Amino acid sequence: MSRTNHQLRLAARPVGQPRPTDWGHVEEQVGEPGDGELLVQVLYLSIDPAMRGWMNAGKSYIRPVEIGEVMRAGAVGRVIASRHPDFAVGDHVSGTFGVQEYCVSDGRGVIKVDPALAPLPVYLGTLGMTGVTAYFGLLDIGRPLAGQTVVVSGAAGAVGSVVGQIAKILGCRVIGIAGGERKCRSVVEEFGFDAAIDYQAEDVRKALRQHAPDGVDVYFDNVGGDILDAVLTRLARGARIVICGAVSQYNNTEPVKGPSNYMSLLVNRASMTGMVVFDYADRYSEATTQLAEWLADGRLKSMEDVVSGGVAAFPETLMRLFRGENLGKLVLKIADE
Amino acid sequence: MSRTNHQLRLAARPVGQPRPTDWGHVEEQVGEPGDGELLVQVLYLSIDPAMRGWMNAGKSYIRPVEIGEVMRAGAVGRVIASRHPDFAVGDHVSGTFGVQEYCVSDGRGVIKVDPALAPLPVYLGTLGMTGVTAYFGLLDIGRPLAGQTVVVSGAAGAVGSVVGQIAKILGCRVIGIAGGERKCRSVVEEFGFDAAIDYQAEDVRKALRQHAPDGVDVYFDNVGGDILDAVLTRLARGARIVICGAVSQYNNTEPVKGPSNYMSLLVNRASMTGMVVFDYADRYSEATTQLAEWLADGRLKSMEDVVSGGVAAFPETLMRLFRGENLGKLVLKIADE
Repeated sequence: MSRTNHQLRLAARPVGQPRPTDWGHVEEQVGEPGDGELLVQVLYLSIDPAMRGWMNAGKSYIRPVEIGEVMRAGAVGRVIASRHPDFAVGDHVSGTFGVQEYCVSDGRGVIKVDPALAPLPVYLGTLGMTGVTAYFGLLDIGRPLAGQTVVVSGAAGAVGSVVGQIAKILGCRVIGIAGGERKCRSVVEEFGFDAAIDYQAEDVRKALRQHAPDGVDVYFDNVGGDILDAVLTRLARGARIVICGAVSQYNNTEPVKGPSNYMSLLVNRASMTGMVVFDYADRYSEATTQLAEWLADGRLKSMEDVVSGGVAAFPETLMRLFRGENLGKLVLKIADE
Repeated sequence: MSRTNHQLRLAARPVGQPRPTDWGHVEEQVGEPGDGELLVQVLYLSIDPAMRGWMNAGKSYIRPVEIGEVMRAGAVGRVIASRHPDFAVGDHVSGTFGVQEYCVSDGRGVIKVDPALAPLPVYLGTLGMTGVTAYFGLLDIGRPLAGQTVVVSGAAGAVGSVVGQIAKILGCRVIGIAGGERKCRSVVEEFGFDAAIDYQAEDVRKALRQHAPDGVDVYFDNVGGDILDAVLTRLARGARIVICGAVSQYNNTEPVKGPSNYMSLLVNRASMTGMVVFDYADRYSEATTQLAEWLADGRLKSMEDVVSGGVAAFPETLMRLFRGENLGKLVLKIADE
C-alpha cells in the first residue's frame, strides 16, 4: 500500500518570529519499516515554546534542527506496521515523531500509551513532557514546603497550569501570572490557584506585594524578561527560582534582556537554576504514575487546546503559542484517531 | 583621661560614586565604657566593596547606614578600657567598630585575635570576613571537585585571591580574571593560579575558550556586569555560579546590567546562588581554623594592601577600591599598634 507522507521541514533559520518562508512542505512516499523498526501514523503533535530554540543554530541543551530536516516535535500516534518486537500494529505510542504524517522509528524513546486511561492529547500534556517538566522542575529544583508561596508564570499554559496545581496539592499558597482576563480567570477558577496576576493589565511588582506579602519562596519561570525581573524584587529569604523557559525572549532580534534585579539573589540568599526535563529520563515513570493518580483522583485537571488542520497548519499554530492564544496544552491534530 | 574620637559619619546618600560631600567629619569626646562594655582603640579598618551598598537606603541583606551615623566598618583594635568580663585591657579584638578612632562596644560580635599568630591586618583579610566569605562561598555554594575548572573574578582582590588558592589546594584548575598586567602577574606568580585573564586587555570570552576548554564548573563572581555575562557563555554542564558581589555595578547611576546570557543556566542545568557570609556566623571558626592552618603551612598566601592616613583618608581609600587599585586586602591604618 502506497502512502504519501506530508512533512514540514526547516527551510531557513528564522530571525525573530518564524515566517512562512522558514518552512518547506515536502511530500514523500512512506517507506516500510525495516527490521527492528515500526511505522507510526501521527495523530497529534505537541506544540512547544522550546521549538523556537530548536530552530536556531548553535550549542544548546539539544542539537538544533538542521536546515532541510523534518521539524522536531513530540507526538502521539498509532502503530500501523511493525518489525519491532516491542510494538504491535494498533498500539498507541508517544515519541519524537516530528512534524509529519508518518514516521519510521527504531523504537528508541517510544513509549506505549493507553487511550482508555486518558485521551491521547493528555499524553502530550499532563502525562507527557510538559507534565513531567512541571513535576521535576517544581519538586526537584523548586522544593516548596507546605505553607510556602509559589509563583508561576505562564500559569495558564501547559507547564504552568500543572506546576500550580501540584503546588496546591502540596499545601502551598499559589499565585499565577498570565496574560489577559480570560486566562487569569481560568487560572483561579479551573486550576484552583489562590490568585492570578494579569501582567497585561497590572503592575506585577505591586500585585505581588499584595498577593505574596511574605515574599516568594519558589518562582517557576516560563517567560523571563520583565516578569522575572519583577519577581526578583519580591523574593523571600532562601528562595528558589526554576528557570524552565523564557518564552518572552525566544523571538527577540535584540539581545536577551538579562534580569537586572539578579543581585536580589545575593540579598536573599536565593538561587536561580536551569532545568531540562531530559535529565530526568530514567525517572519519567515516577512522575507520570503520580500525575495519572492525581488526574484519576480529580485533584489535577488537564486542559488541552486541540487545533485541527494537519501538518500544513503547524506554522500558524506555533505562532498562536507565541501570541499566547492557547489555554492549557496546545496540540495540533494531524489525523483522526 | 580625656580623648578625642575622630569619626566619619554618612552625611548624604551618594548617587553613583561617593563624593567627599557624602561624608561628615565629627569630633567627639570618648566616653568611658559602662557596665558590660569595653572601649576599643581602632588600629586598622577593613575597606570592602560591600560598603557602597551599606550607604544606600532600602532593604538589603543588612540594614543601611543611616544619615548621621558613623560609617560601618570591620576593624581590629586594642582594648584600652573594659568593664566586660570577657575582655581585658591589652587584648586585641576584631569587630564592627566603624570608621572612627575609638569605639565603645557591648562585646557582641567582638572576637579576640592574636597578633603573635598573624599580623593584625590579616584578621581583616584572610582570617577575617573576606577569608571566611571565600571559604564558605567556594566550599558550600561552589562545591568544586578536584580536577574541575574554577574561575574567579576580582582574582587579585581580598576574596578572590583566597578563593583561587583554596581551589588550588582542592586540586582544581583555577583561572583568575583581573584588571591589568600587574594584577594578572600577581594572580599567577604569587597566588599560584593556573592562568589569569586581563579583562582590560583581553576578550574574556575568547580567553576562557582557551583556558577553560572543557567549560567552567564553578564561577565565583565578585564583579557582575560584562564579565559575568562572558563566563555564562562558557559554563560546563551542572556549573555553579556563586554570586558574592557585583563591584562593577555598585556605583551605577543607571539600572544594573542584568546578565543577558542567563539562559545558559537552562542550557547547562546550572545554578546561580547568592551568598552572604553572615549566614555562616556559627561556623566562622571552622573556616578560620582551616585558613590559619593553610597559612601556617605556607599553602595559602595572605596579601594586604595597608594604606595609612587615618580616618580622614577613608573616603579616598574607598575610591581606590572602586578604581581597582588595591592588590589583596585593602586595609586603612588608623593608629600605630
